[in-house]
Amino acid sequence: MVVALLTDFGTKDHYVGVVKGKILCGLDPSQYPVFVDITHEIPPQDVLKGALTLFFAYKYFPKGTIFLCVVDPGVGTERKAIILQTEEHTFVGPDNGLFSFIIKNEPIKACFEIDKEKVLEPPYSSTFHARDLFAPAVARLIKGEDLRSFAKELSKDELVVLSLPEVVETEDGLLVPVIDVDRFGNLITALHQSACLRRFKVLVNDKEVPCVPSYGYAKKDELIALFGSEGFLEIAVREGSAYERLGIPKVKIVWIG
Amino acid sequence: MVVALLTDFGTKDHYVGVVKGKILCGLDPSQYPVFVDITHEIPPQDVLKGALTLFFAYKYFPKGTIFLCVVDPGVGTERKAIILQTEEHTFVGPDNGLFSFIIKNEPIKACFEIDKEKVLEPPYSSTFHARDLFAPAVARLIKGEDLRSFAKELSKDELVVLSLPEVVETEDGLLVPVIDVDRFGNLITALHQSACLRRFKVLVNDKEVPCVPSYGYAKKDELIALFGSEGFLEIAVREGSAYERLGIPKVKIVWIG
Amino acid sequence: MVVALLTDFGTKDHYVGVVKGKILCGLDPSQYPVFVDITHEIPPQDVLKGALTLFFAYKYFPKGTIFLCVVDPGVGTERKAIILQTEEHTFVGPDNGLFSFIIKNEPIKACFEIDKEKVLEPPYSSTFHARDLFAPAVARLIKGEDLRSFAKELSKDELVVLSLPEVVETEDGLLVPVIDVDRFGNLITALHQSACLRRFKVLVNDKEVPCVPSYGYAKKDELIALFGSEGFLEIAVREGSAYERLGIPKVKIVWIG
Repeated sequence: MVVALLTDFGTKDHYVGVVKGKILCGLDPSQYPVFVDITHEIPPQDVLKGALTLFFAYKYFPKGTIFLCVVDPGVGTERKAIILQTEEHTFVGPDNGLFSFIIKNEPIKACFEIDKEKVLEPPYSSTFHARDLFAPAVARLIKGEDLRSFAKELSKDELVVLSLPEVVETEDGLLVPVIDVDRFGNLITALHQSACLRRFKVLVNDKEVPCVPSYGYAKKDELIALFGSEGFLEIAVREGSAYERLGIPKVKIVWIG
Repeated sequence: MVVALLTDFGTKDHYVGVVKGKILCGLDPSQYPVFVDITHEIPPQDVLKGALTLFFAYKYFPKGTIFLCVVDPGVGTERKAIILQTEEHTFVGPDNGLFSFIIKNEPIKACFEIDKEKVLEPPYSSTFHARDLFAPAVARLIKGEDLRSFAKELSKDELVVLSLPEVVETEDGLLVPVIDVDRFGNLITALHQSACLRRFKVLVNDKEVPCVPSYGYAKKDELIALFGSEGFLEIAVREGSAYERLGIPKVKIVWIG
Repeated sequence: MVVALLTDFGTKDHYVGVVKGKILCGLDPSQYPVFVDITHEIPPQDVLKGALTLFFAYKYFPKGTIFLCVVDPGVGTERKAIILQTEEHTFVGPDNGLFSFIIKNEPIKACFEIDKEKVLEPPYSSTFHARDLFAPAVARLIKGEDLRSFAKELSKDELVVLSLPEVVETEDGLLVPVIDVDRFGNLITALHQSACLRRFKVLVNDKEVPCVPSYGYAKKDELIALFGSEGFLEIAVREGSAYERLGIPKVKIVWIG
């Protein structure tokens, strides 16, 4: 069993370790999962960035993986604590949009609201549901407990869903928003290669930038465009940071021929 | 078996990986533990901060967990290398105060000094006892070796114990020191909710701040007080950093009614 | 089975998690390895630093460990994807010098070039071979597949090998380059203690610095020289950062007596 974790907890405090410890507390050693950290460095409270990172990651995990995802500015309030099931995976976390791109891209087999009264054990905190609510729920899932014994079914239509900035069609092409900046300073845009069926050129701040198959095809320090590992158009600098050079630039696609 | 790790080694070098590798070297694969990182970002040589983080974390780990904790400015000198046993857990690390709040809060069943001559294997380093002394000791514990074969019993009274700044009673309330700042910029104080049996208001730099049950009950950017996940009074900013706004402020409790 | 990972991917994105997920996808749960992160904070594209960190780490891992190492500015180009076998370990990654100090210090039993056509499964990315090429190769190794079914043997002489700055002999001693700076600001030099068979003194920016057995033997804030955990001469400040104080200084050894 694999438990993949994504949070905004950072790694300087004890928060992530305690969540893992709490999951293990509920299990027999023979049931201990393999923990895989997706990241804990989602910027504090940035639910949309968390949703996007989860979207880029989830499909590379084995069937049966439980994703525990917590970016949760509304912790302790009335926001729901949910469990989503897709064909391959189970997702556990707050209902605040963190699972937006799972909901948009995968058929949801079932979704549930965790019954706090059945899972929280006193004394519990109202500021750390990852430890006191979500971790015990994950342990119950690993043990194979019947979900309906601690959660009640919800309609998918009740879930919070967020949206990314979208590509805008113009007279001669597309205006393409930057939706993410990675560790290398690569600028990831909202344009998927599946939407680029015609020949095109890429303009960054109104100047044409060459399109290449991979970073290694550019000269050192050259500004380039390419389709990244998830198929989205990226603006990058070979062995450098496009973000440091340009900040968030204006990116445009112009159809040619 | 769970091995939980807490160090000031950071994650940019090979130090943490090597400690884990060294533990595994001493084991049969059937004995491999689950490693859980509490944190490796204790500020360099900050033993008190390490002690506090361990205190906030340890009780959420399963019975039998071995905690390997190394913040060790005195490595290679005469400071003792120790093993502490409580009812539920075993702690391994230097005797420099890192286990202060375990010693103060848990009955210590037994404590031992590791016999360096029996555990260090040449060639060993005098600057990296986590790898050369503590990791092999942890491996021996996992294998179930008799502690007395490589360590000798100590009196608990010989151990180094550090203290945190303490709450000070005033005429009308309490002066409350800030003892920690977490990743979110929340200011954690030394005041536990168990010491607040009367009605009170919270003053931060002499201005009253509202008390709420959780972050989500405040308005965005509002300065609030609340009892955090370990029951200590926190000063926080909803979706912001109290530390960035205030640094380390003066926090006071005034009894009312 | 242990899989140790070393990359320049950082931990803020999903990259490392996805590589682990992809390895697990190829395995039966009974084959799941223990993952140990050496580091993911090699500075972007700094192959030499990656090679050095791997060199400092590998010998502390159990026999049979597979090292997946990816610092790969040439990803997607014609650079080879390789597998090296030593007596104890297997190394997987790009052929760009990342394994230089393994090749220089260990007898290489065999080395192979991964056949991309046999391992890459469409759709694959040309920017993320760690996920699409190296992770599936690691999964095949764990499953015990015959290497020759997806890789072809290479001569060791074809491999890219990088060099570190070297110690230079002078009339009265040695000029010693700094080759690494660790998390504590310790300056690690290229001088191994095995090359210091005579009595010597250490000059840092032309001033003598005392040699001590370990950090704890110095006074707080004192500048010292010592042989670090891998046996290389280090310049350090007790409970401080030599790098912050000196940057990269000139280090000299003068033979005495």
